Amino acid sequence: MRKVADSTVRRLSLYLRFLDDFEGQGVETVSSEALAQRGGTTSAQVRKDLSFFGSFGKRGLGYYVPELAQRLRQILGLGRRYRVVMIGAGKIGSALVQYRGFTQRGFDIVAIFDNDPAKIGTQWNGLTVLPIDRLEQELKAQQVDMAVLVTPGEAAQSVAERVVGQGVKAILNFAPVQLNVPDDVVVKTVNLALELETLSYALTNR
Amino acid sequence: MRKVADSTVRRLSLYLRFLDDFEGQGVETVSSEALAQRGGTTSAQVRKDLSFFGSFGKRGLGYYVPELAQRLRQILGLGRRYRVVMIGAGKIGSALVQYRGFTQRGFDIVAIFDNDPAKIGTQWNGLTVLPIDRLEQELKAQQVDMAVLVTPGEAAQSVAERVVGQGVKAILNFAPVQLNVPDDVVVKTVNLALELETLSYALTNR
Repeated sequence: MRKVADSTVRRLSLYLRFLDDFEGQGVETVSSEALAQRGGTTSAQVRKDLSFFGSFGKRGLGYYVPELAQRLRQILGLGRRYRVVMIGAGKIGSALVQYRGFTQRGFDIVAIFDNDPAKIGTQWNGLTVLPIDRLEQELKAQQVDMAVLVTPGEAAQSVAERVVGQGVKAILNFAPVQLNVPDDVVVKTVNLALELETLSYALTNR
Repeated sequence: MRKVADSTVRRLSLYLRFLDDFEGQGVETVSSEALAQRGGTTSAQVRKDLSFFGSFGKRGLGYYVPELAQRLRQILGLGRRYRVVMIGAGKIGSALVQYRGFTQRGFDIVAIFDNDPAKIGTQWNGLTVLPIDRLEQELKAQQVDMAVLVTPGEAAQSVAERVVGQGVKAILNFAPVQLNVPDDVVVKTVNLALELETLSYALTNR
């Protein structure tokens, strides 16, 4: 398969959200124009994005919603389960373990770690918070696909190195730092503070 | 001032986080190398980023932490207050009104809207949830700087057009869609589902 840009994958995800809505409403076909509007792009871009993965749709009829949705789920890797560890049992971590989007997309949190003695041993969604010292041992014992980092900024890089050292290839990072990882590890950072500061920058400097 | 790239502003925000930590620890000076490491970049990039905004630091001595932090806060527009409306009083909205990062960065939520009769009239952090029909009226009455959209995907574009129509120039969007807005409106989208799907894509297609 050709190398597909991150921006393409993000649009596929947006198209799928739209197709899910349509499927729920019983809509059977959708045009590339409608998908384009939802993805903030053009119908030519939609056709190009989908062409990476084969041939879809019929000229003049558009795309068959259940088929395209199913194919996008496959492409996006949503047909299997992923084992996830969460590192950091603070406020954001607490919101995240309850976030249904994880399990809906196949991400199962199998262990939670913290270094705070007050948190270690507490129960979170049926999981006991483990001491961070146990990280390597658990990563070795369980087939872990992804780590969610919810540590303070100053701890994030060293924790990232520890999980990468045990072969984890994907990190969802909520710590307010850029992580340096090898090229074969994929990192997505969600940083609300940073989004707010780019907004206050924009509001102040126009 | 020259047009500054979004990526530069994001790094300034990361540097500031780092400087805040250092200030808390009583550290007085910091090198461009240390800032670079935290920002996932090079010291040359740090110097370039800061050079947009004037002259900082002394050769061989590095940057004076309190001074640079204060200057970055000014640059990022963190010295003033912003009036914010939140549209959508669901689960994410509920987590967001409690998020201290908003007030810490000068963002004050002044009104919350929903279209669900079960939510309208309820109290959220001292604010009464208003019917969405009142949106234009409130935006006219209050000097609103930013809207936080926490609506379902299918409602987001039309709500965005309504707030933009009343002169709001900044949107923080949690709805799982790309918004089409005029060029003078800045939109930041936080979409956890999309981040997860780019991660599952990467895990499946390598």
